[in-house]
Amino acid sequence: MVKVRVPATSANIDCGFDTLGVALTLYATFDFEIIESGVEFVGFEERFANEENLVYVTLQTALKKLKKTISGVRISIQNDVPISRGLGSSSTCVVAGVYGAYLLTNTKLDKQEIFTIANEIEGHPDNVSPAIFGSLSSSCTTDGKEAITVKYKVDERFNFLALIPDFETSTEQARKVMPEKISLKDAIYSLSRLGSVIKAFETYNLTLLKKVMGDKIHEPYRKRIIHEYQEVKKICEKVDSKGFFISGSGSTLMNIVECVENIEKIKEDLAKLKYNWHPVLLKVDMEGTVVL
Amino acid sequence: MVKVRVPATSANIDCGFDTLGVALTLYATFDFEIIESGVEFVGFEERFANEENLVYVTLQTALKKLKKTISGVRISIQNDVPISRGLGSSSTCVVAGVYGAYLLTNTKLDKQEIFTIANEIEGHPDNVSPAIFGSLSSSCTTDGKEAITVKYKVDERFNFLALIPDFETSTEQARKVMPEKISLKDAIYSLSRLGSVIKAFETYNLTLLKKVMGDKIHEPYRKRIIHEYQEVKKICEKVDSKGFFISGSGSTLMNIVECVENIEKIKEDLAKLKYNWHPVLLKVDMEGTVVL
Repeated sequence: MVKVRVPATSANIDCGFDTLGVALTLYATFDFEIIESGVEFVGFEERFANEENLVYVTLQTALKKLKKTISGVRISIQNDVPISRGLGSSSTCVVAGVYGAYLLTNTKLDKQEIFTIANEIEGHPDNVSPAIFGSLSSSCTTDGKEAITVKYKVDERFNFLALIPDFETSTEQARKVMPEKISLKDAIYSLSRLGSVIKAFETYNLTLLKKVMGDKIHEPYRKRIIHEYQEVKKICEKVDSKGFFISGSGSTLMNIVECVENIEKIKEDLAKLKYNWHPVLLKVDMEGTVVL
Repeated sequence: MVKVRVPATSANIDCGFDTLGVALTLYATFDFEIIESGVEFVGFEERFANEENLVYVTLQTALKKLKKTISGVRISIQNDVPISRGLGSSSTCVVAGVYGAYLLTNTKLDKQEIFTIANEIEGHPDNVSPAIFGSLSSSCTTDGKEAITVKYKVDERFNFLALIPDFETSTEQARKVMPEKISLKDAIYSLSRLGSVIKAFETYNLTLLKKVMGDKIHEPYRKRIIHEYQEVKKICEKVDSKGFFISGSGSTLMNIVECVENIEKIKEDLAKLKYNWHPVLLKVDMEGTVVL
């Protein structure tokens, strides 16, 4: 049996739409065990316990790429990453599937190679990259369709307060609300902030982060499809907010707090809202996927 | 008498339109000397030796901000930075003017303060910032209209081959050719590359640089108003080009070469073109403006 642990991720960070993602200390752990034939699922929700399971599909695709086969597999999951909440649950499955293919066939692990395969399947390097490599990464796809990612340090002191609601936003819906064209000014607004945001994360410069955070590429459109976005933001900013952004394509909202003591107050105020918001304090995950 | 040396800069680097700028080892040196009254100019082209001189105008503006006065001033220049070629000659004048105001009035130098003032006058922090701080910087303007800049390291091995033509492009014309709206895809194309380009500069990763350099925000529009852009690019790429971009808003084209031995060959090929292109090998300036 082989076992991998994949972190949750928060992508589309602020001005880094389709670009910046960070790995967080919330995990999905997967066991892969060779069986005589077919596939068995343990620990998955019933709706995922079938041959369309994303881990399984990815495992099969990766095996094909590696030109290897297995007789059958039992996949078990212990999952703490909420599903369809913008915390990269799909990426954990895809990354796990690729790792599964490598580990079950004794293929030498190569994170860069795994990243390439996982990205071909997932399509969004800004989620897949931090899930594999950990920390903060900035990703792009080259003209030759190669997925490229660079890793940036995130100071360990950062407190990411994930505000997870009990409703979903579909990634498809989130894509639909985006305009096809944007003003040059809005593009520059986000572009010019990216380097400063990365530097603020590297150096734990909360004053800088607070000043430069902002986006006009996706946040203005997507916040409209997240219930109570404004109310939640207002609560956070009143109490403690050094940065506030939509995690992935939502529905989770991410609030960077300076003092963990303030979380209780935020929790109290959120409890007064119509929807249920579950605040979870996360730190940056430095390692990315690990084999246990 | 006080003396300052300000480096040339290359702004709008590739995907970093209005964002990324680098200081280069090409300088303008300015002397300021108190005289009894009025203003005198030494070493300036005749067209600039009048009260609209950018150094002088900036000096006056900065003095007002500092609430200080001087009786009169003699400003001398020794200038190696070509004018109106996209190498930040205006910024050298603005930065020098602000430094002049500080030095002539014995005001304590504060680079951050000088940056704020210079940026209020120049309006483009991506030129002003590297001219003051040196190296590579990523700049933005906050919602509160504060100019923010962060400095990134550039590996000293980089060879910036500035290809300076004998024609100008006006900044105004260069602004005019830009569209008001761009596609979201094009915005993301540039945005997603920025973090990788910064990392490639920090780490002297030429392979990475070559792969990720590219822009769809300004380069496709502005290259049209630079004579022989395509021909020059083709020559460079045939010989040695790890990155190729318009410096500032042109007319200089910047080519990053791996081996200085290749410059001779590039020079030979450029000599066959219709316009005169002067290749000048520059390194990154690490210090920014210095008081001599």
